[in-house]
Amino acid sequence: MIEDKNQERTSISELGEFGLIEHLTQHFEIKQTSTVKGIGDDAAVLDFKSKKVVVTTDLLIERVHFDLSYIPLKHLGYKAIMVNLSDVYAMNAEATQVTVSIAVSNRFPLEALEELYAGIDVASKIYGIDVVGGDTTSSTTGLIISVTAIGQVDEKDVVYRNGAKPNDLLVVTGDLGAAYMGLQVLEREKEVFKVNPNNQPDLDLYTYIIERQLKPEARKDIIKLLKDLNVKPTSMIDISDGLSSEIIHLCKQSGVGVELYENKIPLDPQVISTCEEFDIDSTTIALNGGEDYELLMTISQEDFPKIKANPNLTVIGYMTEKDKGMNLVTRAETLIPLIAKGWNALNDQK
Amino acid sequence: MIEDKNQERTSISELGEFGLIEHLTQHFEIKQTSTVKGIGDDAAVLDFKSKKVVVTTDLLIERVHFDLSYIPLKHLGYKAIMVNLSDVYAMNAEATQVTVSIAVSNRFPLEALEELYAGIDVASKIYGIDVVGGDTTSSTTGLIISVTAIGQVDEKDVVYRNGAKPNDLLVVTGDLGAAYMGLQVLEREKEVFKVNPNNQPDLDLYTYIIERQLKPEARKDIIKLLKDLNVKPTSMIDISDGLSSEIIHLCKQSGVGVELYENKIPLDPQVISTCEEFDIDSTTIALNGGEDYELLMTISQEDFPKIKANPNLTVIGYMTEKDKGMNLVTRAETLIPLIAKGWNALNDQK
Repeated sequence: MIEDKNQERTSISELGEFGLIEHLTQHFEIKQTSTVKGIGDDAAVLDFKSKKVVVTTDLLIERVHFDLSYIPLKHLGYKAIMVNLSDVYAMNAEATQVTVSIAVSNRFPLEALEELYAGIDVASKIYGIDVVGGDTTSSTTGLIISVTAIGQVDEKDVVYRNGAKPNDLLVVTGDLGAAYMGLQVLEREKEVFKVNPNNQPDLDLYTYIIERQLKPEARKDIIKLLKDLNVKPTSMIDISDGLSSEIIHLCKQSGVGVELYENKIPLDPQVISTCEEFDIDSTTIALNGGEDYELLMTISQEDFPKIKANPNLTVIGYMTEKDKGMNLVTRAETLIPLIAKGWNALNDQK
Repeated sequence: MIEDKNQERTSISELGEFGLIEHLTQHFEIKQTSTVKGIGDDAAVLDFKSKKVVVTTDLLIERVHFDLSYIPLKHLGYKAIMVNLSDVYAMNAEATQVTVSIAVSNRFPLEALEELYAGIDVASKIYGIDVVGGDTTSSTTGLIISVTAIGQVDEKDVVYRNGAKPNDLLVVTGDLGAAYMGLQVLEREKEVFKVNPNNQPDLDLYTYIIERQLKPEARKDIIKLLKDLNVKPTSMIDISDGLSSEIIHLCKQSGVGVELYENKIPLDPQVISTCEEFDIDSTTIALNGGEDYELLMTISQEDFPKIKANPNLTVIGYMTEKDKGMNLVTRAETLIPLIAKGWNALNDQK
């Protein structure tokens, strides 16, 4: 969190646009057999043979999606890749390539971009994807990162958002709300730091939730797990904007309703204790927090025996006929209509 | 160029992020058989069967790549697509899909984004491509457009930058320098307008060069022409940063030298007259102007009979052994080493 004033600074313009991309990606290795040609031509050339290709794209903007006063650039690079891979996995596909475009202002020295790309490189190694293209340009203000992720999938395995049926089980991976509470802790420490820069924050109580905010993982493991369990979800989506908002997407696109059980929503103990400390309702956070990058899916009841013992998969409700509506069943067993507050970047504008 | 103060203004935040993307793309039609699923899920799903897939991406940033005081938003949407399709065609591929992400600040009303997307829609109709994904988010400052273009090509037809051989002919499409001179005229009129807002500019003398700046066309027609002529270039690149810079790319990646003939460089009469008016050397503009979005290729000498009568293709030099260097042969028949001044967004930062 504290900037090292003595760090080496090389001006980006010394390298020029072409030199910059070459410099930043020179150590990147090709790992996918589907990558015929990566960086270095007008376009990448890919070969997916008989597989279907999935493509998804996301923009990350400084001061809208991230704050460089608490996210290290290496983590940011890693996270930018995760955000996109998560969308590929949500199609039940294998992520294979990404392109990464960045716009930076002159205030970023070359060393800062090297840090960002180091995070991208780590992500690409761990997740086995190739960085096959990109664009670097100048920005009049902050840092902008645009990632397009590409994946492959057999036609029979593609899972859309619109396949949920009444009586299907609603299943979520991992636990929810941690990334949002991690952000609250980081924001609080930033304010403390402004008042007293010598104060060294003790963040031991928040390691899990801070890591969920700064270094989320896309659930590649779940795609493999589902295959191993021989379960094909009837619908799936990744949780980027909050559980509530994503459930509503599945319901609307599938033409079904839902009953979501408050007492089934998986929460980490750190989320519960931090919510108590901040005096916020943990269910509200799980429903609307966002940035969890977990997978939300619906599964046919007959597949329940295959998943019921698995600690990665939690049944949190079931789908109903559309006219039953979309409802949260509270701990007090009352029904409350689900609404998508979500993490709406367009309303949250600062 | 003059803003209509009475235009209708709908706040973007009234729609929210999901509503916004749906609203902006609801009229977009699917034209490509390779598009299995477009906008509306975590990712698009595409099917290229046995074809290779090409992918390219570009970022356009307000005040770095465009100035909204003279480019209408509809033209900007069109141009953002062209810039990317041009890279697909430079692989000798057919462009099939794009994803479009935009970040906008609150100063843009919904109607402005509708204009931008109207331009994207026109481009997608004329060029037969599908808009299959995207992301809309807020920006703390200006408008940011990130486009990823996808195309397909038979393996045997892919043309890279690295296949040029000594004695190959260097061939360029169309004419050069017009987009840059169009920009000079627009910049001048902007200054005049600042001094006297009632002055109505007479731009009749500059229609071609202004159109080349505001509404460039990617050379889809050339890919078809090359196929019809049964010519496969040995290398190819699109001219986005200036002829000189692109020739150097082909030479370096192919390990060859070049002799470029100044008197062969195709210039439109409007470029010549405007260069005279601005007292700039037209060759300098053709070499370094940029944003032409023409194709530069090398062709085996034995294919010369097939192309020599074609008004779209101009032979401007030939490739040499690497040790001969990269040179411009001037009208006075002296040799000048080619240097890449180019249109370097990272140095041009304002």
